[in-house]
Amino acid sequence: MHIKKQRLLTPGPTPLYPPALHAMMASDLHHRTEDFRRVYQAAIADLKEVMGTSYDVVPLVASGSGAMEASVSNLFSRGDKVIVCSAGKFGERWVDITKGHGLSPVVIKKEYGDVVTPAEVEAALKDNPDARGVFVQASETSTGAAHDVESMGKIIAKTNAIFVVDAITGLGTMPLKIEEWGLDVVIGGSQKAFMIPPGLAFLSISPKAWAFEATSDLPHFYFNLKKEAKNAAAGESSWTPATSLILALAEALKYIKSIGMDKLVENAQLLARATRQAAAALGLEPFAATSPGSSVTAIKAPAGMDSGKIVKGFRERFGMIIANGQGSMKGQIFRIAHLGYFDFADLFAVVGSLELILAANGYPVQFGKGVSAVQEVYAEATGIRQPVNA
Amino acid sequence: MHIKKQRLLTPGPTPLYPPALHAMMASDLHHRTEDFRRVYQAAIADLKEVMGTSYDVVPLVASGSGAMEASVSNLFSRGDKVIVCSAGKFGERWVDITKGHGLSPVVIKKEYGDVVTPAEVEAALKDNPDARGVFVQASETSTGAAHDVESMGKIIAKTNAIFVVDAITGLGTMPLKIEEWGLDVVIGGSQKAFMIPPGLAFLSISPKAWAFEATSDLPHFYFNLKKEAKNAAAGESSWTPATSLILALAEALKYIKSIGMDKLVENAQLLARATRQAAAALGLEPFAATSPGSSVTAIKAPAGMDSGKIVKGFRERFGMIIANGQGSMKGQIFRIAHLGYFDFADLFAVVGSLELILAANGYPVQFGKGVSAVQEVYAEATGIRQPVNA
Repeated sequence: MHIKKQRLLTPGPTPLYPPALHAMMASDLHHRTEDFRRVYQAAIADLKEVMGTSYDVVPLVASGSGAMEASVSNLFSRGDKVIVCSAGKFGERWVDITKGHGLSPVVIKKEYGDVVTPAEVEAALKDNPDARGVFVQASETSTGAAHDVESMGKIIAKTNAIFVVDAITGLGTMPLKIEEWGLDVVIGGSQKAFMIPPGLAFLSISPKAWAFEATSDLPHFYFNLKKEAKNAAAGESSWTPATSLILALAEALKYIKSIGMDKLVENAQLLARATRQAAAALGLEPFAATSPGSSVTAIKAPAGMDSGKIVKGFRERFGMIIANGQGSMKGQIFRIAHLGYFDFADLFAVVGSLELILAANGYPVQFGKGVSAVQEVYAEATGIRQPVNA
Repeated sequence: MHIKKQRLLTPGPTPLYPPALHAMMASDLHHRTEDFRRVYQAAIADLKEVMGTSYDVVPLVASGSGAMEASVSNLFSRGDKVIVCSAGKFGERWVDITKGHGLSPVVIKKEYGDVVTPAEVEAALKDNPDARGVFVQASETSTGAAHDVESMGKIIAKTNAIFVVDAITGLGTMPLKIEEWGLDVVIGGSQKAFMIPPGLAFLSISPKAWAFEATSDLPHFYFNLKKEAKNAAAGESSWTPATSLILALAEALKYIKSIGMDKLVENAQLLARATRQAAAALGLEPFAATSPGSSVTAIKAPAGMDSGKIVKGFRERFGMIIANGQGSMKGQIFRIAHLGYFDFADLFAVVGSLELILAANGYPVQFGKGVSAVQEVYAEATGIRQPVNA
């Protein structure tokens, strides 16, 4: 077709909230002025509000992986034994970071699509009473699976270990009661449910985690959480902040507050449920079926079809950028995102396109069947009674 | 639902082409410099190319109505008899403008939704051999109807009258062979198929029309086509040009050239056909059924339902701005646009939403049925064989 709008529909970068993008145009300001300090402090205060915590929240000019590394390099010490839940590409990243900093990770390894259970974490902590930390992904973006961080947190809270949660795609797509559930470190990134471009990461840090910071012996300079937290309280950043992204974040947070973080989560959950039902209506198998999250839904390509063909179909036929599988899942699955600035109209467009792409690749499809499954979830959620039938 | 993206889906303003919008950020340039002259001349050259004419094309800082007035005030004289085809709100505007400038319009009046036929124009010219002009809308945006300007133009070309065509929503949605069909004045506007914000209008002017300019006695100052055409040839504008919009236009025209004006037209035609078929699948009646255009498709609200409810449903449920009927058609019809930066994914979203809105208002709908009609048009146009069935 002739007009194909580029639509960025991946689980990060996510679709941008236009007023946040427009706010970046006001970047002709200096970061060591009262004007900027006001924006910076407001953004941090709003971050704490939407994260629902009174803990310190520390922003970093980095992508999420930088904040992941900062949690290790600032809170742990050489040789520390830690438990790492690894159920996908980002679990493997925890292994790499902890090993890279000389920690001694006990890895609970699961197949892609599966999850680590709270019981397994409990058992690992029992077997390793000297473990100083537990690392997990709230939402494992590579597979679409979600971990039960509530149950894990409540187990870990009873130990001397701290619980470090990569919630980069978890924030805004699942409830995360930071203080109530014992989530000592929660990591987020700008290009996810926060609806702005990449370049900012942030961490909430509990008092229990700060106590770890006091004894940490790992070298770090740029990622200095203590220094950054102290500066942030005064509206300052340790190093030059990414002013354009802070302006964008401040604007996006106003929007997120206006709809409510719980509603943003519910939005993602409804879209995820609708996507699973659309896949089922089209006879497609979900991936990560035991514990599907709501940041992204991974769907298996039909037998004999490379999922790259589906991703390519979205791009070439409709201008839509949709995620393929990552790592060993490439070619096996495709992933439809829901985190942040996604709405039902997006999903009508995505599923309507998917049906045509599947048909173009020889897969039997009844046009409109997947879309109708999405519509039924919308109708149920909003109380529309379908006065059947035409 | 919680996230509802604002989607501007009206027949003007139309969805904006993002790189054109971004180009407006380069407005910190002066209009009397070589830098700007280059942009201005390139935009005019590209306009002529996509309009397919070697005639002068004159840009104005105005909305389309300004260019409509300029065609009257620059080319006609007090008391001139002219024939006006009036089949909707914009036909009525020709009556107002010609009367307002002291011309003597012979109005061929049709009901909203109907069109003036070439035979009627021919008869009116026979009855009024002293008529100096014929005015028409190529596409009557208020009803979605298209006039047969090809046949009209070939009739008018044999007379002493000039043919003035409001193609504000016609350009980019229907073939318009300006020179071959005898279209003496063709009027366009920026916020239509040109995918940029409102504020620019332009006219192509034939040698036959320029001869009229030489004898026109109507007062005009700001809208001076002769002066503007002369300046445009040198990369200048008579008055301060809207630099941001010229920058946007230049960028949008690059895109339109890259896909081809004929393909842009075909895109609108396919979307219009798909919309008509979706309406039929949902049991809805088209408006302007005898001569439906491709800029916008007007659909009658179901019996007993105010079309305002549908427009409101789009806005409140989905954040989509869709057009109601205009003038006397308000409440009777709603209009789905296709001109410019619209694609099939938009239409999946629009029709998927429409089905839910109709159901919410008690109209019996089988979810997915309208969307599948759109998908069938896409599949047919792109050669997808639907390997039925699930």
